[in-house]
Amino acid sequence: MLPEAESAAPAMTAVLTAVLTEGPLSRVTLARRLGLSQAAVTKAARPLIELGYLQELAATERSGPGAGRPASPLAIRADREFFVGVKITADELIGVLCDLGAQVRKSIHRPLLDKDVDYVLTELGHLVDDLIDDRSRTRRLGLAVSGDVDRATGLVRYSPFLHWRDVPLRELAEKATGLTVTVENDVKALTTAEHWFGEGVGAESFALVTVGTGIGCGLVVNGRLVSGSHGVAGEIGHIGVDVNGPACHCGGRGCVEAIAGTDAIVSRAGLSFDDAVNAARAGDVRVSAVFAAAGEAIGCGIAAVANLVGPAHIVVSGEGLAAYDLFETHIRAGFERQAFGAAAQCPLSVRPLPFEEWARGAATVSIQAFVAS
Amino acid sequence: MLPEAESAAPAMTAVLTAVLTEGPLSRVTLARRLGLSQAAVTKAARPLIELGYLQELAATERSGPGAGRPASPLAIRADREFFVGVKITADELIGVLCDLGAQVRKSIHRPLLDKDVDYVLTELGHLVDDLIDDRSRTRRLGLAVSGDVDRATGLVRYSPFLHWRDVPLRELAEKATGLTVTVENDVKALTTAEHWFGEGVGAESFALVTVGTGIGCGLVVNGRLVSGSHGVAGEIGHIGVDVNGPACHCGGRGCVEAIAGTDAIVSRAGLSFDDAVNAARAGDVRVSAVFAAAGEAIGCGIAAVANLVGPAHIVVSGEGLAAYDLFETHIRAGFERQAFGAAAQCPLSVRPLPFEEWARGAATVSIQAFVAS
Ligand SMILES: [Zn+2]
Ligand SMILES: [Zn+2]
Repeated sequence: MLPEAESAAPAMTAVLTAVLTEGPLSRVTLARRLGLSQAAVTKAARPLIELGYLQELAATERSGPGAGRPASPLAIRADREFFVGVKITADELIGVLCDLGAQVRKSIHRPLLDKDVDYVLTELGHLVDDLIDDRSRTRRLGLAVSGDVDRATGLVRYSPFLHWRDVPLRELAEKATGLTVTVENDVKALTTAEHWFGEGVGAESFALVTVGTGIGCGLVVNGRLVSGSHGVAGEIGHIGVDVNGPACHCGGRGCVEAIAGTDAIVSRAGLSFDDAVNAARAGDVRVSAVFAAAGEAIGCGIAAVANLVGPAHIVVSGEGLAAYDLFETHIRAGFERQAFGAAAQCPLSVRPLPFEEWARGAATVSIQAFVAS
Repeated sequence: MLPEAESAAPAMTAVLTAVLTEGPLSRVTLARRLGLSQAAVTKAARPLIELGYLQELAATERSGPGAGRPASPLAIRADREFFVGVKITADELIGVLCDLGAQVRKSIHRPLLDKDVDYVLTELGHLVDDLIDDRSRTRRLGLAVSGDVDRATGLVRYSPFLHWRDVPLRELAEKATGLTVTVENDVKALTTAEHWFGEGVGAESFALVTVGTGIGCGLVVNGRLVSGSHGVAGEIGHIGVDVNGPACHCGGRGCVEAIAGTDAIVSRAGLSFDDAVNAARAGDVRVSAVFAAAGEAIGCGIAAVANLVGPAHIVVSGEGLAAYDLFETHIRAGFERQAFGAAAQCPLSVRPLPFEEWARGAATVSIQAFVAS
């Protein structure tokens, strides 16, 4: 990608990452932050400025007071490069075009009538064409898929909602779009967006819990995303919270997802999800109890996260939280009951998640791959 | 500690740590492993050799084949320095004297008739005197205590089994013994021993689960011990696995510890722990069911660890596993039921834990503090 400075590559990656995620920074601050000499920072920044990824802000914009040379902080040039991000769900593609700073510039939904891999790839090709305005400055695509995804090889090992097994998605998508593709699990992609561009910037640890058809969790511990030695991590949905509870599709019993996933709520309420929400909001005692048990199970799972890894903060989000008013107090009650001692001090933000955020997560993963390259 | 080489201190710490934990290593291997130049390794090793912490093995002992200069690997001189480690329990002090390589040279138990802080410190002074043979080469003490311990300040915030609150243990123990003291939570100390000198060497992630009066868990994730942003981590004992289960002393319901801790087994069986073990071994159906439920709860908690952080391997140990035969199949059954997908591939070693291991963990923490100094 930036071949003329190969030996300085790690320093360039470090400088670009720091400016991207922490905003305009002076060379002095960068040197201190990254444990590099000022000369090394200057050397690493030069090709990034020449290629147009970084710019020097006017010295008058320096943030700190003080005598001596003006600071001239370095900032990214967000419109130097664009990135496509697509979340593939069972019934639609959600695509965004983001700039280098992960700001969404454009967003398109495209319905899927089938889960067939070839069909989905053809539709992906059309979506990408509709999103891209300038091919010369848009060379990368990030794809987010739920399930067991191997980012290193771009293989989707198993995606239950898509009924995909062992699909070499990176390779296929590169053929279909002509872009350089990165594939990641959707919850990990969303967590990466939070870690690089959201509330998680600079945090040594945090957790992002997503509530919807599936119940997932992305974790950052000791400053890095937790990926799991055996390919599994963040599976909060399959923590067993009720040994006498309902059987789960995973083979477990009383899993959080078997009590609080969208399908579980539909099956326990005997109504469609929307009807269940309406019934509970209208005060139906039986259906309200279904949401209460669901919220308690989620809260108990979140407490397990807090008790085990002690994140600095936890964000609870996801499309299931459209019914936020029915869940929130029960999530908090379950969490407070099961959080051990000081773990209960962990701040919990419960907030809705626009569907585009998943696609922005996918774009973030491709920005990250670009910066590392 | 090693003042003559202050500017080289980080490289010295890195070299000493690598040789300590990974055995004899050549300067070439060290340079590659640590991302340092060979000159930097040589410079960092020199004062360590002069002070007697490292030695050059004879060149004939070089491990790899190849032409050129002989390799002369660097090894530690284990008997250059000794470290005392003491685990403080509610009814005894368990002390060991370890060498620099964390080998136990001597071990002494001293009963405690009281939990009073002053009394315990007086007894600690006697124990340390009995353990140390050579004061000039024994300058550090590690203390391991169950409960909420702040290693940075040496404060025991709360230790339920000792009934201690806000005891400035480091300061008091330094006065009582004349040694430089490090205080750590007992499970974290044991995990540190495993990470530096046990099965966990070189692992990016692993978990150590301890079963006994309390049920605890030490975690290494992304190469480092997980300490918890709010001071809580690894509290597997308070994960809720049965929403309709027994109340726990923590305020939770159906916690692993409320089903599987020693006190829970005693109370559910209506017998002393030893009598319960004997009854279950003799085939008593009711008491066997108590152990089965306990094992299942532990297995379910361990599956939560595997599902969330995906450790490379998990060791299950602790004094409660003296009744290992009654627990093991149920621990494995609970784990296999709740481990999600590939998380079930995580190897589980179930092994007993001699009490001295806790004290060795404490000594390891003081070795670590020495190396960092
Ligand atoms: Zn499940
Ligand atoms: Zn509890």
